[in-house]
Amino acid sequence: MVVILRNNTEEKKKEQLIHWLRKQGVEVHTSVGQYQTILGLVGDTSRIDAELVASLEHVEAVHRVSAPYMYGNRKFHPDDTEISFGEGSIGGGHFAMMAGPGSVESEELLLETAHAVKAAGASLLRCVIKKSYSPYSQNGESIHVGRLVDRVHRETGLAVVGEIDSLMHLDEFEAFDVLQVSARNMQNYELLRALGKQERPIILKRGHSASLQEHLVSAEHILTGGNGKVILCERGMRCFDEQNRCTLDLAGAVLLREMSHLPVMIDVSQTGFSRTVEPMALSAAACGADGICVEVHPDPMSAHFDAAQSIRPEAFAALCRKVEKIREVIA
Amino acid sequence: MVVILRNNTEEKKKEQLIHWLRKQGVEVHTSVGQYQTILGLVGDTSRIDAELVASLEHVEAVHRVSAPYMYGNRKFHPDDTEISFGEGSIGGGHFAMMAGPGSVESEELLLETAHAVKAAGASLLRCVIKKSYSPYSQNGESIHVGRLVDRVHRETGLAVVGEIDSLMHLDEFEAFDVLQVSARNMQNYELLRALGKQERPIILKRGHSASLQEHLVSAEHILTGGNGKVILCERGMRCFDEQNRCTLDLAGAVLLREMSHLPVMIDVSQTGFSRTVEPMALSAAACGADGICVEVHPDPMSAHFDAAQSIRPEAFAALCRKVEKIREVIA
Amino acid sequence: MVVILRNNTEEKKKEQLIHWLRKQGVEVHTSVGQYQTILGLVGDTSRIDAELVASLEHVEAVHRVSAPYMYGNRKFHPDDTEISFGEGSIGGGHFAMMAGPGSVESEELLLETAHAVKAAGASLLRCVIKKSYSPYSQNGESIHVGRLVDRVHRETGLAVVGEIDSLMHLDEFEAFDVLQVSARNMQNYELLRALGKQERPIILKRGHSASLQEHLVSAEHILTGGNGKVILCERGMRCFDEQNRCTLDLAGAVLLREMSHLPVMIDVSQTGFSRTVEPMALSAAACGADGICVEVHPDPMSAHFDAAQSIRPEAFAALCRKVEKIREVIA
Amino acid sequence: MVVILRNNTEEKKKEQLIHWLRKQGVEVHTSVGQYQTILGLVGDTSRIDAELVASLEHVEAVHRVSAPYMYGNRKFHPDDTEISFGEGSIGGGHFAMMAGPGSVESEELLLETAHAVKAAGASLLRCVIKKSYSPYSQNGESIHVGRLVDRVHRETGLAVVGEIDSLMHLDEFEAFDVLQVSARNMQNYELLRALGKQERPIILKRGHSASLQEHLVSAEHILTGGNGKVILCERGMRCFDEQNRCTLDLAGAVLLREMSHLPVMIDVSQTGFSRTVEPMALSAAACGADGICVEVHPDPMSAHFDAAQSIRPEAFAALCRKVEKIREVIA
Repeated sequence: MVVILRNNTEEKKKEQLIHWLRKQGVEVHTSVGQYQTILGLVGDTSRIDAELVASLEHVEAVHRVSAPYMYGNRKFHPDDTEISFGEGSIGGGHFAMMAGPGSVESEELLLETAHAVKAAGASLLRCVIKKSYSPYSQNGESIHVGRLVDRVHRETGLAVVGEIDSLMHLDEFEAFDVLQVSARNMQNYELLRALGKQERPIILKRGHSASLQEHLVSAEHILTGGNGKVILCERGMRCFDEQNRCTLDLAGAVLLREMSHLPVMIDVSQTGFSRTVEPMALSAAACGADGICVEVHPDPMSAHFDAAQSIRPEAFAALCRKVEKIREVIA
Repeated sequence: MVVILRNNTEEKKKEQLIHWLRKQGVEVHTSVGQYQTILGLVGDTSRIDAELVASLEHVEAVHRVSAPYMYGNRKFHPDDTEISFGEGSIGGGHFAMMAGPGSVESEELLLETAHAVKAAGASLLRCVIKKSYSPYSQNGESIHVGRLVDRVHRETGLAVVGEIDSLMHLDEFEAFDVLQVSARNMQNYELLRALGKQERPIILKRGHSASLQEHLVSAEHILTGGNGKVILCERGMRCFDEQNRCTLDLAGAVLLREMSHLPVMIDVSQTGFSRTVEPMALSAAACGADGICVEVHPDPMSAHFDAAQSIRPEAFAALCRKVEKIREVIA
Repeated sequence: MVVILRNNTEEKKKEQLIHWLRKQGVEVHTSVGQYQTILGLVGDTSRIDAELVASLEHVEAVHRVSAPYMYGNRKFHPDDTEISFGEGSIGGGHFAMMAGPGSVESEELLLETAHAVKAAGASLLRCVIKKSYSPYSQNGESIHVGRLVDRVHRETGLAVVGEIDSLMHLDEFEAFDVLQVSARNMQNYELLRALGKQERPIILKRGHSASLQEHLVSAEHILTGGNGKVILCERGMRCFDEQNRCTLDLAGAVLLREMSHLPVMIDVSQTGFSRTVEPMALSAAACGADGICVEVHPDPMSAHFDAAQSIRPEAFAALCRKVEKIREVIA
Repeated sequence: MVVILRNNTEEKKKEQLIHWLRKQGVEVHTSVGQYQTILGLVGDTSRIDAELVASLEHVEAVHRVSAPYMYGNRKFHPDDTEISFGEGSIGGGHFAMMAGPGSVESEELLLETAHAVKAAGASLLRCVIKKSYSPYSQNGESIHVGRLVDRVHRETGLAVVGEIDSLMHLDEFEAFDVLQVSARNMQNYELLRALGKQERPIILKRGHSASLQEHLVSAEHILTGGNGKVILCERGMRCFDEQNRCTLDLAGAVLLREMSHLPVMIDVSQTGFSRTVEPMALSAAACGADGICVEVHPDPMSAHFDAAQSIRPEAFAALCRKVEKIREVIA
């Protein structure tokens, strides 16, 4: 950490600050310039609140020179992490295609989708049972999840991904192979810590306006608990354009793979238009993502949720063939 | 809802769409122009998924002409809602000042702060016991919340505000007069619905990148449950400036008070600098907010959390005097 | 245009408004609902100021149902526009690769780069002579532009692109085959109108925080002058992430190609890191862009400008080979 | 400047870099830590391209420890700058109210407005003759600017502010007392440098998505030319909310006054709604701005430009009275 003092700081104030910093357990190196004094802090600065220091009267600025995440940091773990599930895996050169309806409406529809996406090349089935987001509507008929996941396993061998949005429901998710944390929950630290005790892979989506660093700090909450199987998922940031308010940050995904050894998946169905799904999936493959997630529905017009952004199984199959060829190009 | 069709839409396709729309229970009025056909939908369009319709092949655009929130909509409830707690109230001309430490570190420190902010004019005490946001640190000593709130009530008469971040902890919050939902939880619908069953006032913070409309839709999840005591709280949006990445949307607060009859409070301590707290509090008062929330700490340098953005009790007292005078100016 | 009136609007006020709207030369159709009255405006609404109408006391909202751009609108010109220059062309299935240094430092360096990028497959040479952006520095030695462009033509046959940032310099740009307008000048309407009188193709970059619609309105200023050769260029939007503040909006480029018949090029060198250039170029090709622009420099370490985001000629050649293969995949 | 090297950097590479840095004329201090080596650069680092250094293979990060602006930096000029014009001044405790129509439609209308705003307390008259922003419309009748400004001077004594958007028109602006640069031109460096040769005060608006630092760097282009009379003007940033896409950054204005000794004015008419003008003006006064700019029009309904955001002279007079009282509160 580097602390820059204002040029008019009294000697006494400077010494008080240095004394206080040393009490926090770090070494302090001082370099005096014409317009400012720079304090270089060496040692474990992770316990020092950079914002607190920055707010002090005589401090002009504070720069962290080391990243606030460790377990997910490629600096300390240079090799790619590979994460396995069912018959597939992701990371370390392994590519995973995940697909499924925006929300599971019935057992039959999910199975139909599962067979179709398996045939097209998916190794992960999205199996999200969305509660309504409308404040006025009731939830639909209940679905027996254990039986459902069991059928998918038996009939297709696909690994099944559920989306958990509250610690309260953790036991209902026993049957799933992989758990997904939505963008809205990226900073639900209590949930993340509980998932750190799980042995299953966790797909952690990036929040709508989270920085890459914040995404990695959230991953850290899972990793420090002992669960190293975190898959980072880029899904688009909130932007100012009315036409296209959720913007996929593909260069961010490239940087994320550089900052971290964890696999990076890209969810291409959140821009809100089914007609941008294929181009974005191909772009995601082209920039080197470790996996792609696509919403697929046999009959989007009849779907309850996210219909606007779902594509049909045939379109998904065509997309998969192109993604595979693009992966060959960049190999 | 207004649906605009592309100009080359075949008559048959158009009729299919109109037929489908009517099946959703709405009347459809058609106006044919040179380059496009406009369908006007009249009736209860709240069940129609605008994005699904927008994604159809022959649809160029869809505009909702009515807002997707009802209970909180000033159109249906023209008069300001006033919400009472302890000895104070907010809305309908009543102004509330809320203050307290970023996080409660000890019983004594909270009581010291409570007495100070009460004397300065606050009617709500912020009493948030923050769990650490660092993935590496442990939580501190536990605090007996029931006893704490009880002491505050007995010694100061202040209403006490707790921040609930998970449905799992609802019973630990029994002692509090008011519950606050953080920006990170603005779309935790399960939590919001449970709060709709409460009788206590709820302070609902706006998410870091939530639109005003999304804020009001979140409020709707509480209101539809039967709890009409929702206080909307603006606390700053994520922006691109490195210097000042959390930008208070004061014009947004003005528009929010126009869109809704619910009281609007402004949390001025989230810009991250103690030195912007007073100017922002005065700006918040000047634009007509119904309440202001400020982080106050007797000794910011020793605080564990959010120290950078806390001000001392004396500074808070000075701020309150100015806020009061500004309220007289705009009365 | 659709105008929604508040539900408590007096009959008289409503009639005054309708009268005023008719005076602006449009037909007004009225539909009365329970909570609001909807006025449908038919005719040439392009002269009506939607924001003015929206600000009237009794108006709740205004929606434009037709786009505020016409010449560039695919609705009126369904077929792709193809634009030719030198030995190449862009749009209508033709793909163009543009490359060159961030800024021309010397004649020799530009020629060296020109030969290299021509060999790799480029048809457009970026030939931008940047004035310093530092307020303290002087501009370097002057370069004889006419002779320079002439040499490029003679030796390589590449079409040469210059960046014009002020109408005052238009005559200095005579030698160039194509003129480029930077993001900073996207709304310099005076310049755009002058370019509408040119016969050369114009590359119009999207502003840092311009919407797709604003980009197309800017193009309209050129198109209405009679110059139909506008190439739209996506180059990244300002975002909140410190790591990656300029985010390429690839889904936006897909939508832009749907909204307009004009070719869409993607400048992949503005994220600020040379190591994101290739992944972003491949992503741009994969999503169906009509062209790509890359900053190439024989010796980035010695470059004065934008060195951080330039790649070497060999890296560009490798990139071109991959782009070509990706174009085959999506064909 | 602080340069952080990756932990696996070979000694030889490190020495090469240090050698190269020294050749740029700075001293280099090295501190070796466990995971990284930190190079502290002392001396004139303004010539070193931080992004170039950051892009080098062995460099992990670069932090500038001094701000890239000097003349406008409060560090070197601790006292407020006061700028005078006509009968008023701004900065150093002096407050200026600027008002006038969005665009001058006729001489009579401007004079009517001038008398009204003078009476209400304005010292600066906004006198902007907007060219149409529509690509289809023609400009209106021409107005004789010299005669107009002369009449304003003679009849009201107000200083008159013109908006210059191109160096080409500089001689047409001779009559004006103050020149204003719009947000769209904040980075038109050629224009800024020409204004650095002027003796008149310059109002420099912040770009729609410019950081505070970029705003100050733009000011530097004027200041280095010798014109120290720069008034910084906050006018709102582009944000994601459809309701309110231009968000005033008032905390940013507070920080700007801390970063720089130049006066900071706030234009409160850019949120697009006349009904947010007064609340935002009062907020601007409350946070300590040195001046406020308001669009005033005797008959907004008949105005050609920006009518939606103009207020009537009586509303302006009421606003001025409240602003004055708020200035007393914060004095």
